[in-house]
Amino acid sequence: MEDSQEYKNKKAYFEKIITLYGRNVVIEILQDETITIHKLHMSNSNKPDGAVETILKLAKKRGIEVVYHDKNALSRISKNAKQDQGVAIDIIASSYQSANEIKNLKSFKLLALDGIQNPQNLGMIIRSCAAGYVDGIILPKKSSAKISPLVIKASAGTLFKLPIYYCNTLDEILKELHDAKIYLLSSHAKNSIYDLKKNEKSIFVLGNESEGVSKEIEKFCNDSISIPMNRGIESLNVAVTASLIAFMR
Amino acid sequence: MEDSQEYKNKKAYFEKIITLYGRNVVIEILQDETITIHKLHMSNSNKPDGAVETILKLAKKRGIEVVYHDKNALSRISKNAKQDQGVAIDIIASSYQSANEIKNLKSFKLLALDGIQNPQNLGMIIRSCAAGYVDGIILPKKSSAKISPLVIKASAGTLFKLPIYYCNTLDEILKELHDAKIYLLSSHAKNSIYDLKKNEKSIFVLGNESEGVSKEIEKFCNDSISIPMNRGIESLNVAVTASLIAFMR
Repeated sequence: MEDSQEYKNKKAYFEKIITLYGRNVVIEILQDETITIHKLHMSNSNKPDGAVETILKLAKKRGIEVVYHDKNALSRISKNAKQDQGVAIDIIASSYQSANEIKNLKSFKLLALDGIQNPQNLGMIIRSCAAGYVDGIILPKKSSAKISPLVIKASAGTLFKLPIYYCNTLDEILKELHDAKIYLLSSHAKNSIYDLKKNEKSIFVLGNESEGVSKEIEKFCNDSISIPMNRGIESLNVAVTASLIAFMR
Repeated sequence: MEDSQEYKNKKAYFEKIITLYGRNVVIEILQDETITIHKLHMSNSNKPDGAVETILKLAKKRGIEVVYHDKNALSRISKNAKQDQGVAIDIIASSYQSANEIKNLKSFKLLALDGIQNPQNLGMIIRSCAAGYVDGIILPKKSSAKISPLVIKASAGTLFKLPIYYCNTLDEILKELHDAKIYLLSSHAKNSIYDLKKNEKSIFVLGNESEGVSKEIEKFCNDSISIPMNRGIESLNVAVTASLIAFMR
């Protein structure tokens, strides 16, 4: 039987792996020295053209393990046979951790993202939160944009500097954080972001631009705050909202 | 001889006109009731297809004046023969005014944009500034993204809610504002955005993401402030920077 601690460590390691695909993407990833790479996957059927040669040269230079697969096996790895172009790469998202870890934290200021589908917004949110005064973001796998080169680009290299707490859906973690202030952004709230007191444990829930926070998640919010706005304007870009919260200290 | 005041009023009116072109763009503009329209320009050579019919129907519904031109004359109006598709529309940017007007203001907090070329960033900056605590932005025509449907979309309908002070180049106005604090954003600055005192007259200069503030404009800055950042991160998206300044009050 596998040693329990070793098994846990392995599981934690593999949960931090994100697989990206496509030739240009893989080249970009290999060129970015700030990204830790687990493995490069190549299809046997790749013809040794310019892009493939570049990929293999970059992988060799960085000492990355290359694994060859038949075409179908590669598709199972990339999960996108149509767009993988016979190459996929596993990167290690060192800052990724299970949202269950939040239960072990004594205090925190977190942003929970409910349905942020736009990769540029997600990247900007990560960048601002990493630079600002928050302890991490909660990213539900089911309703969020996938980590992709667009997200990495918009995050300007900050993707793995900020703790990212993943879960399948937000409710599964929110319902377990009984002693946290869970804030909904609302123009009707009594308190504004300028009145925020330092809570021991606070979570700010941000919904996507068109739908806002979903009904299912709204019911987990036990407080609300507003961002006071001028000139009759009612909303801000969600990445801007995240940034304002991140830099309120 | 033209009456001087009347002439000035006319000049001011025509300086607020922005011409956009292309069939989908014109349809979008005509459908947006928040945008004031001066005139619709059509080429004589347009075949009466679906898009042209939609445009004329929308213009009629809103009571917009339609002017017909030969193809070359229309190109001179759109200034883009390749992409105008035989249609152009003049919209009234009611919030536009000459940067010279700033000299008449007793106090102000303004953002000056030096080379913001990305339409999405420009739109987001306008949106955040309109909602936030600033009195307007200074937009030099020569180095900024043109007001386009992309900008209008990213501004989420706020484009004409915020005073926009136009000039040809930033230096021509900055050099005349002798009693204003003109801030450069700099990580080396002694004071941060959290220490900002209310100045009677303050301008924050923002450069574009790749180049920062240009050398020519930097020399007009007589003070600097920083945005303190964590985790070794050195910069934020320029629209986020603008938003943080806009909401510091």
